[in-house]
Amino acid sequence: MKPLNPTFAADVASSFAAQPIMNLIGARLSLVEVGVVEIELPYRADLTQHNGYLHAGVVTIIADTACGYAAYTLMPAGSNVLSVEFKVNLLRPARGEQFVARAGVIKGGRTLTVVRADVFAVAENSEKKLVATMTGTMMCLR
Amino acid sequence: MKPLNPTFAADVASSFAAQPIMNLIGARLSLVEVGVVEIELPYRADLTQHNGYLHAGVVTIIADTACGYAAYTLMPAGSNVLSVEFKVNLLRPARGEQFVARAGVIKGGRTLTVVRADVFAVAENSEKKLVATMTGTMMCLR
Amino acid sequence: MKPLNPTFAADVASSFAAQPIMNLIGARLSLVEVGVVEIELPYRADLTQHNGYLHAGVVTIIADTACGYAAYTLMPAGSNVLSVEFKVNLLRPARGEQFVARAGVIKGGRTLTVVRADVFAVAENSEKKLVATMTGTMMCLR
Amino acid sequence: MKPLNPTFAADVASSFAAQPIMNLIGARLSLVEVGVVEIELPYRADLTQHNGYLHAGVVTIIADTACGYAAYTLMPAGSNVLSVEFKVNLLRPARGEQFVARAGVIKGGRTLTVVRADVFAVAENSEKKLVATMTGTMMCLR
Repeated sequence: MKPLNPTFAADVASSFAAQPIMNLIGARLSLVEVGVVEIELPYRADLTQHNGYLHAGVVTIIADTACGYAAYTLMPAGSNVLSVEFKVNLLRPARGEQFVARAGVIKGGRTLTVVRADVFAVAENSEKKLVATMTGTMMCLR
Repeated sequence: MKPLNPTFAADVASSFAAQPIMNLIGARLSLVEVGVVEIELPYRADLTQHNGYLHAGVVTIIADTACGYAAYTLMPAGSNVLSVEFKVNLLRPARGEQFVARAGVIKGGRTLTVVRADVFAVAENSEKKLVATMTGTMMCLR
Repeated sequence: MKPLNPTFAADVASSFAAQPIMNLIGARLSLVEVGVVEIELPYRADLTQHNGYLHAGVVTIIADTACGYAAYTLMPAGSNVLSVEFKVNLLRPARGEQFVARAGVIKGGRTLTVVRADVFAVAENSEKKLVATMTGTMMCLR
Repeated sequence: MKPLNPTFAADVASSFAAQPIMNLIGARLSLVEVGVVEIELPYRADLTQHNGYLHAGVVTIIADTACGYAAYTLMPAGSNVLSVEFKVNLLRPARGEQFVARAGVIKGGRTLTVVRADVFAVAENSEKKLVATMTGTMMCLR
């Protein structure tokens, strides 16, 4: 996979910074490579559901955003990316000190890009557990 | 569909109130019937992505929560509900004054319940548009 | 929803007839309207899995085909339709004398169309049960 | 992952042999290990759709079956496995001399097991291309 946009990393960073929801939940971009993006989210009590675990929708926010930007790294400069669909399997309770969504492109395309994201919970002792996996379709708008 | 838990509506309401994430985003429970739950979310700029639309993950928060509680209305008293998986198709930009996720059970079961949620954007002039649809599997923990 | 292709019904019928797999399993097109397509499949023992139910993949053949043609009824003449993705929830054992997949377009679009299909099992006494539901994304190639 | 059923490989083979649909399409079991199953399907013209590619539903038959048996290798002796749901992303036209579905368990569980399958098309010159990927939930019935 070769990037069409030489400034893809800076473009992902500035687009991420322009997303108010990322600021609300406290997510940050931790890695941007060709076809791969990671987003980190420290635990916060106000992001949880009734059992104290990260809400599945919050897990989805970071997974979907990582998928979108992973696809975006392969798109031409000036593109806009939007999520067409995604499916999430929730594998374990999302309990941890920190959460990491790591997305990688499975298949790029002119219009559609298919991406997978794994979301890990990281415990205080640094143990990482896979808590969710997403497969999604992202669309390029030129 | 007949409820096994006579106090299901009050139980949904108190469980919803115990979810910190609902308070963070400003969602509220607007309808609880046997097999059907609606959640409303007023637009707020801090819930949006880089184009000013509601982030797909926020759409997912209200859709998933509505699905979980719709399933919960059919579960025995004292159950806990968790999301096994969901898939979301994003149909239009989530732009509006208010968003409503309406979930209805497609197939109940002792262990697994399949639920669908439609998410509508409501414009200032009250026009409603379907912006996303979710199908999910919810699990009953006794 | 208004068809762009005045001969959509004949075009669906001839495309269906050109699918060897439909002949192999014995499926037939039972309804073609704007945005809605139904496919019927009589039970046959050689279509079943180890418990004697219709294999989930065979359920998928008729659901996916119905979704593709439902989308196709809204596409311009001369288009080709392909499945981008689909998700199937299997609700009950697919046991019956006959199976019917009924697909309806949820949201049409220039490039992508989102479609839902319900698959019913019909018993000897004509009782119909919903055995599976699919949501899929179909793409128009011009 | 440790198998609970010491005869899992023989049990998968005999269950596979008892599926009439596998015989109809000409699929065969090519690998059974703990948590991993592969199914091969030689190309046949009567398995194709109108463009001459393997029908997406046939791709699904082998992917779903591989997922089910991959989950089954981890279940106790005498269990029955059924598919709860699956989602398939179709990445490229399914064109080739042979198709291979390779499934691996992502997360085992007492009741539910989440499995991923990749389906490859193998060309005459042995080149392998990923044509579809499935993520599914399988249920153990004791």
